[in-house]
Parts: sequence; structure tokens; C-alpha cells
Amino acid sequence: MEAVLNGDCSSHASADSISLHDFSEKFLEQRVYFHLMKLSGGFFLWVGTATNPLISNLAVSILSRTDSAPLSTLVLGDTSDTTASALAQRLTKKTKKQVFVSYNLPVTDSNLLLLVENRIKQEMELHPDKF
Amino acid sequence: MEAVLNGDCSSHASADSISLHDFSEKFLEQRVYFHLMKLSGGFFLWVGTATNPLISNLAVSILSRTDSAPLSTLVLGDTSDTTASALAQRLTKKTKKQVFVSYNLPVTDSNLLLLVENRIKQEMELHPDKF
Repeated sequence: MEAVLNGDCSSHASADSISLHDFSEKFLEQRVYFHLMKLSGGFFLWVGTATNPLISNLAVSILSRTDSAPLSTLVLGDTSDTTASALAQRLTKKTKKQVFVSYNLPVTDSNLLLLVENRIKQEMELHPDKF
Repeated sequence: MEAVLNGDCSSHASADSISLHDFSEKFLEQRVYFHLMKLSGGFFLWVGTATNPLISNLAVSILSRTDSAPLSTLVLGDTSDTTASALAQRLTKKTKKQVFVSYNLPVTDSNLLLLVENRIKQEMELHPDKF
């Protein structure tokens, strides 16, 4: 089975398979890809571009038993850059799930981060079963 | 675009998109899923089952400048379990690329690991462009 992903949305789902979900959006003349893998009790989200696909960092966040703010840590990448771990933390807060985030976009652009985060939240409303 | 992955093979590829490749195989009455994401200079490989999808570990391996054996480290998970990092190391040795591996199968079964590794190598021969 061959399928071509052209900037829209692609999903695989059946009773006996891994739930994968891909979508993309053009922000400021740049297409950003979102690649989502549902895990038991959480999800893995990769955000990046097609021109330079990387896993430059990986953050993990879980709900805390003692604190209302989720716990979040960077397991891979530059620890002085808190973008991925902060994003993972906010997504855990919203979904109450364990969240893995790999954020591979220029972090100098905080406006882009806001657009990206809003796009993720929009997808959560459109496809809550994928998260 | 909706697509159902039913144990066969699914790929997305176009000039301006992220190369994703999924395949699966039944080993010893258990279906194992492989989920592959091509990165620049390497790839990310997730191996696991649909009944309990997890990212229980993550290993990264790169070629060494001074040693013929690639460098490999576990960035997430139980460091006493070397399965993922050893697998990543062997895949880097074979492909000469940076390899991320998340191996989410019972590690007590070394026979299963052998089958899984052979299946990955078979897929590399069938679809070298996906790695």
C-alpha cells in the first residue's frame, strides 16, 4: 500500500495496529510537519520541516502526583533550550497524558511556537482520538 | 486522506514531505510493528506491538571518528538493558548513519530480537531509500 502525503492529513487506524497521525500546516511561507504516534497512556509528537528533518531534542512530560504542574524533562538535546520541555509540559497539562515532544524548528521565533501550539490544539479538537 | 494499515506496508513520500515508512511482521503469533522516520543523515525506528504501544527506551548511535565501532548511548530507559543501544549500534554500523532506536518488546526473548533484526535488514534491502 503506497500513499502520498501532500501537506494534508494522513492516518492509519485499525483494531490491531499502531495509531499514527500526520498533518502539516504552512506558517509564514514554511510548511511545518506534525507526526503523531499514539502510545498507551500518552503520545509522541514530532514537529519539524521536510527540508531538514532531525530529532534534535526530545522532551518527556508526565502528570505529577503532588503538584498541579506536570513534571517535564529534556532527555535529548540542548538543556539550555526549554522550548520542547515547556511544550510537552503544557500538552500534558491539557491532555493529562504522558507526552513525548521532539521540536525541531528555530527556537528564536516565539511567534512560530505560538502558531504551532495553536495548530496542535486545533488538531486535538478535530481528532481527539489520535492523541 | 485516510488509510488503514493492516499489517502490510505503508509509505508516504513526496518531494516536500517527511519520509515515513511503516511495516509489520508476525513473529511467534505476535504481530510486531516497525515505524520508521527518515531524518537528514539518519533515521528513527520504533519497534513494538499494538497491544501496548510505548516509548520505553530510546537509544542513539553515531559513527565514531576514531573507532570502527559506532558510538551508542541510551538516552531514555533502563540503562542496564543494552538491547536498544546494541541494536542502534549495529544499524549504524550497517548503514553508516545516525540511528535512533526505540525497542519496545520483551527483552527476555533474544530469539525475537534476532527475528526483528533480520526483518529490519530485509526491509533495508527492499526499501533502501526509506532508511
